Amino acid sequence: MSKGSSAIPMDQKFQLDDVIESQQFDRDILNDIFEVAREMENIEKNSPGSKILRGYLMATLFYEPSTRTRLSFESAMKRLGGEVLTTENAREFSSAAKGETLEDTIRTVEGYSDIIVMRHFESGAARRAASTASIPVINAGDGPGQHPTQALLDVYTIAREIGRLDGIKLALVGDLANGRTVRSLAYLIAMYKDVKIYFVSPDVVKMKDDIKDHLTSMGVEWEESTDLLEVASKCDVVYQTRIQRERFGERIDLYEAARGKYIVDQKVLDVLSKHAVIMHPLPRLDEITTDVDADPRAAYFRQAKNGLYIRMALLKLLLLG
Amino acid sequence: MSKGSSAIPMDQKFQLDDVIESQQFDRDILNDIFEVAREMENIEKNSPGSKILRGYLMATLFYEPSTRTRLSFESAMKRLGGEVLTTENAREFSSAAKGETLEDTIRTVEGYSDIIVMRHFESGAARRAASTASIPVINAGDGPGQHPTQALLDVYTIAREIGRLDGIKLALVGDLANGRTVRSLAYLIAMYKDVKIYFVSPDVVKMKDDIKDHLTSMGVEWEESTDLLEVASKCDVVYQTRIQRERFGERIDLYEAARGKYIVDQKVLDVLSKHAVIMHPLPRLDEITTDVDADPRAAYFRQAKNGLYIRMALLKLLLLG
Amino acid sequence: MSKGSSAIPMDQKFQLDDVIESQQFDRDILNDIFEVAREMENIEKNSPGSKILRGYLMATLFYEPSTRTRLSFESAMKRLGGEVLTTENAREFSSAAKGETLEDTIRTVEGYSDIIVMRHFESGAARRAASTASIPVINAGDGPGQHPTQALLDVYTIAREIGRLDGIKLALVGDLANGRTVRSLAYLIAMYKDVKIYFVSPDVVKMKDDIKDHLTSMGVEWEESTDLLEVASKCDVVYQTRIQRERFGERIDLYEAARGKYIVDQKVLDVLSKHAVIMHPLPRLDEITTDVDADPRAAYFRQAKNGLYIRMALLKLLLLG
Repeated sequence: MSKGSSAIPMDQKFQLDDVIESQQFDRDILNDIFEVAREMENIEKNSPGSKILRGYLMATLFYEPSTRTRLSFESAMKRLGGEVLTTENAREFSSAAKGETLEDTIRTVEGYSDIIVMRHFESGAARRAASTASIPVINAGDGPGQHPTQALLDVYTIAREIGRLDGIKLALVGDLANGRTVRSLAYLIAMYKDVKIYFVSPDVVKMKDDIKDHLTSMGVEWEESTDLLEVASKCDVVYQTRIQRERFGERIDLYEAARGKYIVDQKVLDVLSKHAVIMHPLPRLDEITTDVDADPRAAYFRQAKNGLYIRMALLKLLLLG
Repeated sequence: MSKGSSAIPMDQKFQLDDVIESQQFDRDILNDIFEVAREMENIEKNSPGSKILRGYLMATLFYEPSTRTRLSFESAMKRLGGEVLTTENAREFSSAAKGETLEDTIRTVEGYSDIIVMRHFESGAARRAASTASIPVINAGDGPGQHPTQALLDVYTIAREIGRLDGIKLALVGDLANGRTVRSLAYLIAMYKDVKIYFVSPDVVKMKDDIKDHLTSMGVEWEESTDLLEVASKCDVVYQTRIQRERFGERIDLYEAARGKYIVDQKVLDVLSKHAVIMHPLPRLDEITTDVDADPRAAYFRQAKNGLYIRMALLKLLLLG
Repeated sequence: MSKGSSAIPMDQKFQLDDVIESQQFDRDILNDIFEVAREMENIEKNSPGSKILRGYLMATLFYEPSTRTRLSFESAMKRLGGEVLTTENAREFSSAAKGETLEDTIRTVEGYSDIIVMRHFESGAARRAASTASIPVINAGDGPGQHPTQALLDVYTIAREIGRLDGIKLALVGDLANGRTVRSLAYLIAMYKDVKIYFVSPDVVKMKDDIKDHLTSMGVEWEESTDLLEVASKCDVVYQTRIQRERFGERIDLYEAARGKYIVDQKVLDVLSKHAVIMHPLPRLDEITTDVDADPRAAYFRQAKNGLYIRMALLKLLLLG
């Protein structure tokens, strides 16, 4: 949503005109979103025929495919009685292939819908779309840039599973260099008090300095470790991620070495607190063994489900306020 | 739908938790489904705005494309007031491409929907999905395996067109070796009394022994014939199928020979009883000539339409009981 | 929709059984459609939850992708409370790939829906579909053939922007040889009185003689010009089009020369009347510079939006009368 010369200060709730990046949220806004997400959980479970978004139309404009994210948004819209226009591969099929600018596409699509959920291959695309559109835009991932609804559902899941965010002890495991989700999660969790973060990753995919510096500047304690079991025994949340093969190019040997290094398995469960949980943004390969799934502390499918509630909440907040 | 340690015996109606394979049906269940299908026919014709599945969400998870089957299921759901999440090429686009297991995909998708209709390229995939999911799963075809809703609509069409199933005389024509539909149909029809089946096919694609042995063990009379006209003159149903080119590899010559051998045309109509019908699972190439279409005994487009009623019935039974 | 031996004369309103080509419309029908389109504009703006097409199902059967057109139709249907079955790439995925005829596909799809919106790569395909189907068919573009809803929205936009169609002065600019839209627009506008058309195009893509001859036979004044500024200063509407690269094959040099020749920019705005407008069927590349967008006379995004109202009107007229 483009803004005119508004008199509303930047830190007011009007930030929820669009959802573009994790940095736009503060604790108060997160609280508001999470409260609505809890309401949505009740709606989804108890009144399957909710119609609060009846008559509203969401356009899913995906320039690269992401079935999981798309279905989650579309389910959220439909669970609230809204309708959906879908484009699964806008890059190949739309006028983009003929050279149309993103801005022109947005100006057309905003005429057909009430809200745009966009996934794009280019960092910054969501911001460009939002500044063009006169209707709300939600960033469903823009290339190596942001994926703010994933970050929101991750924080929401910690709050739901552990019962608090202040004082949380969090292990981020796996590909910390390229993983958009762990970077955003580290950024958001830094707004809470007495947080401690452990980075556990193969050397080739270590957390980058910008996030470490940001954490330090926010007064968040962090340390790097190579001992997953020792870390797991101290944490409330072990957040595992997939090592992405495509980042290694020809060096399959490096990939294989990195991939096998930190696996969440029964041994991790053995040292993990009763109240702690395992999270993962999915999809997973074998970085969490399937025998972990049956353990009540395996929270990753509940986490995926929370994505539905967060997206229901955002759609409700952006369309109805 | 996964089953816990249930006390309900295997032959109870609880088999309609999922629709996985033709073998799960007996005469009683078929009767129940067909009765509901008749009701659905009335609903579709008289109350276009039925809302009995309002608030329910079906996920169409297609790992290989099948526009006809997908549209039929989605129409069925929407004719009953339900909503749909669509994935037309899950294989290429979804997390499957990154190596996610079918089980993990199902655990995610079941969080977004109330029933899953899945098509897969691998035999047995539907059973795996059903044993993972806590919501109903309908198999919309799994590779060379099963396509149970096609089998149901075929039997339903015979019942609707001829008025009975006991005592039916049925000719199965064309590719009987590879055709999933004729194998399933032979299997289901064997549950009825005094059935007689004629197999009419080129030598290279003859019906396999497993089905013949099953028919014999069930007391069903069958014979092979090379004389389509003679068979057609004696049958209630001539079920024609397409010879599938892709089964012949480099041997185009064998394909061409097989393809032209048994054509349903005006000559077949000339010997066919007044009350008999021509069926075909579609798509057809030239194995039924287009001048047959106008004959009232050409039942194949009505058969396709019956697919809608059968799928409406299954959705109703699985979601509402 | 196929017609039986109807007694209704050809020039009655029953022509709106299907929308196949621009030639099927006369001034009276256009008036009726435009009146309903105005109503639709009010519905879309004031009652987002309209349900006049509740219970109706539209099948979008696209044999080649056109995201803009598809979304416009699907939005139109959903804005009126109707439902949609989508096929984005019927050519590759459907039974067409196995050799099924268009007629057989139509006979199946008509069993699942109440109206078919079809885009096809072959000229004449829409007519074939309509003569097969017993439900209404709307042509959403058939290859180099017709794209009648684009022609309707273009004429509607002129009427809405300028306030009249008689006496209009219209410049058609750009690729006049290959552009389906300018040809259809010239054809339709010729039904109005005292129209004057200017053709402004590079030599390689000039308007063809068939349209010029038709205009002459209808008593429409036309002339060719190479001076865009001079023409723009005299016109009510400057209709710019994209030079299509794919028409030039290897001759990129010719394409580049043609492409840069007539650009709508600030200089055109400077000579354009206050009441005049710039139109474009979109997508645009650089044949209209982006600094033109902010000018109130830039009508192309309003024109795209009018496509929604025209399609809502057609769906309403074809389904409810």
